[in-house]
This record gives sequence, structure tokens and C-alpha cells, in this order.
Amino acid sequence: MTVYSKKLEFNTQERIAFIKITDLVRKAVRESGVQDGIVLVNSMHITSSIFINDDESGLIQDFKDWLEKLAPKNFDYQHHHTGEKNGFSHLWRTIMGREVVVSVQNFELELGPWEEIFYGEFDGQSDKKILVKVLGE
Amino acid sequence: MTVYSKKLEFNTQERIAFIKITDLVRKAVRESGVQDGIVLVNSMHITSSIFINDDESGLIQDFKDWLEKLAPKNFDYQHHHTGEKNGFSHLWRTIMGREVVVSVQNFELELGPWEEIFYGEFDGQSDKKILVKVLGE
Amino acid sequence: MTVYSKKLEFNTQERIAFIKITDLVRKAVRESGVQDGIVLVNSMHITSSIFINDDESGLIQDFKDWLEKLAPKNFDYQHHHTGEKNGFSHLWRTIMGREVVVSVQNFELELGPWEEIFYGEFDGQSDKKILVKVLGE
Repeated sequence: MTVYSKKLEFNTQERIAFIKITDLVRKAVRESGVQDGIVLVNSMHITSSIFINDDESGLIQDFKDWLEKLAPKNFDYQHHHTGEKNGFSHLWRTIMGREVVVSVQNFELELGPWEEIFYGEFDGQSDKKILVKVLGE
Repeated sequence: MTVYSKKLEFNTQERIAFIKITDLVRKAVRESGVQDGIVLVNSMHITSSIFINDDESGLIQDFKDWLEKLAPKNFDYQHHHTGEKNGFSHLWRTIMGREVVVSVQNFELELGPWEEIFYGEFDGQSDKKILVKVLGE
Repeated sequence: MTVYSKKLEFNTQERIAFIKITDLVRKAVRESGVQDGIVLVNSMHITSSIFINDDESGLIQDFKDWLEKLAPKNFDYQHHHTGEKNGFSHLWRTIMGREVVVSVQNFELELGPWEEIFYGEFDGQSDKKILVKVLGE
């Protein structure tokens, strides 16, 4: 059994960003030497997300508009009484999810036809890490 | 360590369908020969979902009504400018989730008293695959 | 390869409760003897959740208020025709998620700076179990 860990580091220019990381995860899987197993990819922060969906700019805009409807940025969240201004970021990340687990087969990510792995950042412009953990044989 | 992969194939009659797949996953777990470990079950498509909840027809209807409220079918999604008509399907799948990871114990799924594994299809009537991956010893 | 299972047991005083369980999961990880791997933590019930977010009381209140907006307690859910009164609990759990998978490194949970593991109970006041499963070497 092989276990391999890697951190991906980001500091987004925009507060809200959707970044495709499929190739970075693919690279980590190859580095791991794991032929058959799984890979866990998770944000290490509570205002960002790892999720799988389509790499289509219209859909990314739909996600942003929809999340704004479900949990508006400008709202008097209780969390803001601590001095924070990112109440919505915590809720957006809850909708989009913290992590994905993906199959590894023949040293490669085993993804469906349109599956792409995304890092969704909802309170960026500071140093953030994504954890990639490969397990298998 | 044993790693076992299996694909489940579907082509639903209806565009929107909720199908209980617990027994199909249970069968894959037995085929794997894994006594103690985990099983990953994920949709390989970006408009469908694997989730765990109750096998109760009223609740399934509640899910459909609720998803329609959170992300209506008839809405001018940006994604539709590509010619697609399934903007809502991507959002429904985001709410319901892409995957589940379940414990395997004594060659069996280790589920709570009412836990059933469902395949939620939100843009069906074409060939779809579900990936089942068992890891353990 | 080592596989270790543990059940955490709860019976909350309140119907709705958010309980930080990071230390209980940490303890299970140490008991497992796993140095490098992953840990799956999932609710064994369909009206409660395991999720990762911030341990901040204002934010916990924001979650409660937001979930009430997305899926109100007092609503005539189809599921209630079975005699149940917990339609909202199933929907809240869907938003918050059933499970988390976390990296284990050096016999410890590998969490980001503010990540805390929570048990979110949305239909409590009865016996509930959380499954903790550690895999690795």
C-alpha cells in the first residue's frame, strides 16, 4: 500500500474565484506511483471548496449568481459580529462542498466524460492550501 | 490490500429519476472480497448524484419539489447559451452531492438503520455510469 | 495496511444541535495506530450530518437561520403523510452533508487552520451513532 500527500498553494487575485485544478491533481497522482486506488482532494480552509463539475464559463457564472441568491454577500450575518465579513463564504462553501474523492486507475484519475475538478474560492486574496492525498497500490 | 472497481450502467426512462442502488453496491462489495474497508460510489456525470437518504416516496417527492424551488428548471441560465438546456441539473446535483463513501465491515456495507444509497438522475434518457470502488483488506 | 472502526454515541438534549467532535475523532485516529492515511467520519442516520467548518457561535446561528430559510420546519412536506414530522431534517442534512474524509499524517488529523469537525443533529433526542473509520499504514 502506498500513501502520498501533496499540498497545492494558491493566493487568488479576486476574492471569488473558480480555478480548474484537474491537471494539478493528475500530476500528484502520477507522482504518487499509485496504480489503483483513490485520491482525496480537499480545501484546508472553511471558506473555499473542492467540487467536480463542467468547465464551461456560463455555468461558472450560473454558480456565482445562484450562490448569491441562496446566501447573499450583503447580509447581516451573526458571524460578522466577530469582525469578519465572510458569512456568505462559509455558506457558499457548504453548498459547493469541502472535498472530493476520485478513483485512480492505471496511474490516472478515473473521471467521467465532462468531470473536471475545481477549486472554488469564496474569500481569497490570501494564502490558501489544498490537500491532495493518494492511497492505493 | 485489495482494490476492486465496477461500473453500474443506467439509461433512465424519465429525465428526472431517483433509483435505489443499495443492493447493486452491496453486490459489488461482496464481489470485491474486501472484509474491512471502504467503498466509494460516485456518479461519472455532472448532472446526476449519488446520495444517502430514506427510501420513502413522499420524501423523494419532497426532494423534487425542494430542488425545483432552489433551482427552477425554467430559468434563463447562462449555461443555456451553449445550446444546453440542463442548467438546473448541474445545480440540483450540487445540492444532492456527487459521491458517498461508506464503511465495509464483514464483507458487507455498514449502513445505519434507514440509510439507502440512491442514484439521483437530473438529465437522464441517455447512457450513464456509476463508479463503485472498494478498498480494504 | 490497518483498518480501524469506532462508533461515537449521542443522544442530544435539543432536537437541533451542533456538537464539535474534532477531539473525539482525533482520539479514534490515535487508537487506530494509523500513521499515514485517511479517516471517514459519517452520520449513521438520515437526519443528521457530519461537516467541517468554523467553531464560532455566531456562524452556528447563521447556519440554523439559513437552513430554516432554505427548508422551513413548518411546511407540509409529503414525508409527513407517513406520520413523520421531520421533513426539514432530511433536507437540512442534505445541505450540510453526510460525511467527511480527512487526511491522517503522523498519527494526527491533518486539518487546516480553522477546520473543526461538527456533528449536526436535526432530529435529536434519541440514540444516534457516528461511524469513524481509519485506513492507512
